[in-house]
Amino acid sequence: MTRQDLIALIRERRSFLCVGLDTDPAKMPAHLQGERDGVFRFNRAIVDATIDLCVAYKPNIAFYEALGLEGLRQLKLTMDYIHSLKKPVFTIADAKRGDIGNTSERYARAFLDPKGDFNFDAITVAPYMGADSVQPFTVYDGKWVILLALTSNKGAFDFQLSEGREGTPLYQRVLQTSKQWGNEDNMMYVVGATKADMLADVRRIVPGSFLLVPGVGAQGGSLEEVCRYGLNGDCGLLVNSSRGIIYASNEMDFAEAAAREAQKLQQQMAAVL
Amino acid sequence: MTRQDLIALIRERRSFLCVGLDTDPAKMPAHLQGERDGVFRFNRAIVDATIDLCVAYKPNIAFYEALGLEGLRQLKLTMDYIHSLKKPVFTIADAKRGDIGNTSERYARAFLDPKGDFNFDAITVAPYMGADSVQPFTVYDGKWVILLALTSNKGAFDFQLSEGREGTPLYQRVLQTSKQWGNEDNMMYVVGATKADMLADVRRIVPGSFLLVPGVGAQGGSLEEVCRYGLNGDCGLLVNSSRGIIYASNEMDFAEAAAREAQKLQQQMAAVL
Repeated sequence: MTRQDLIALIRERRSFLCVGLDTDPAKMPAHLQGERDGVFRFNRAIVDATIDLCVAYKPNIAFYEALGLEGLRQLKLTMDYIHSLKKPVFTIADAKRGDIGNTSERYARAFLDPKGDFNFDAITVAPYMGADSVQPFTVYDGKWVILLALTSNKGAFDFQLSEGREGTPLYQRVLQTSKQWGNEDNMMYVVGATKADMLADVRRIVPGSFLLVPGVGAQGGSLEEVCRYGLNGDCGLLVNSSRGIIYASNEMDFAEAAAREAQKLQQQMAAVL
Repeated sequence: MTRQDLIALIRERRSFLCVGLDTDPAKMPAHLQGERDGVFRFNRAIVDATIDLCVAYKPNIAFYEALGLEGLRQLKLTMDYIHSLKKPVFTIADAKRGDIGNTSERYARAFLDPKGDFNFDAITVAPYMGADSVQPFTVYDGKWVILLALTSNKGAFDFQLSEGREGTPLYQRVLQTSKQWGNEDNMMYVVGATKADMLADVRRIVPGSFLLVPGVGAQGGSLEEVCRYGLNGDCGLLVNSSRGIIYASNEMDFAEAAAREAQKLQQQMAAVL
């Protein structure tokens, strides 16, 4: 999905919500636990209930890998289902990959290749290994690399906020350096909602780029704060909520409950747009 | 595999060679291309030909993910085969994972859990997200996290070598900080052979830790240099070679050719030990 198509979708749905499909079988409703294709059936119900309220889905790949080959089959079923719908939606493999150049090429193929098993629009990538680990993700037309800049966890303080010789935190050097590797049409950044005030610093360096913002809800981030510092003229935000939506209920009404929570966020977003 | 068992294995086999199972179907011998379970059959032949000459196998997970679900099935067949042999060998998932704490737990389960589909001894992890992204990989008994410190690629210069306020390169701050997260019994480090002279600096910070050293051979690193700066009293090195061994020939004799190349390295290692 191109930048223009994404912006149009945000305007049409009056939403910049990304729903995190971090599906944990133990937290699914009892009637789906242990059922064949239970994870897929859970995801399908969440997608059906939320697709008019959001613009993106973001499965965190770890949740599927933890279930072994069978989990990855559930992920494929989920992606096949999303692709089978006639409704446009942006899909993000939250995979946090990155390796030397010829190896990153293979991760790019695994997640972004239109002929591959998943065909995501975007993938999250860790910057530690530098240019050649990131650039292979930028070569697919209409596909995106979403580079980790400032994450929402406590560990972000260990290195991301450590200052270089000239006093600039590492995450800002990542933002600055990465502008040589991609552009506003193929690169976004992860900036955690739990550090919303730092979005102003992020915006000084990448004013026009889209930001994927996790951490709203369960992790404590505030949508209002994120919008105050992060919005730009094209919206420029994808705000993710996972647990707050998909586990809003673990009863038979889980999909309706997810829709209600998604709608609350969508309405706040519509008011801002 | 515990540290003591690994050291004993190195002494017994007179080798600290790790064979990288970075299997690319396009580089396999013609008779295996397009064959059912061709990747597994290639790996099995490589393992049979090299297991007495090496102490570790390291499939890079990207090579399998690039082939979709079918590729991961080939990886599982490979790991099942290695586990079925009665010979001890250390297995490393070169996966370069890392996410917020509760998500890293899932990656740890995916690769290290003895009841999981793969049951590796170790996994490579990227440090960018800090403490809570790394610690979940240290909780399995006799299993290891191998943290990226200084990688063998050109992109390593972008951030890993960037100096902090006090003049210390990031990779050294990663080494130093990570000593709070694990110990010599559950944490190793990736240090690229292409930067062998920096191994002396690494050894000042983590004198007793095992180092996984990629980049010997195809990437240009020298085994002699690596040993000069990296060996410690317990050996403390796992030196990886991938392409130089597994693609030594792409004819019917590929396994014999792989054994010859592995033996050359093993003999150099035996001379050093």
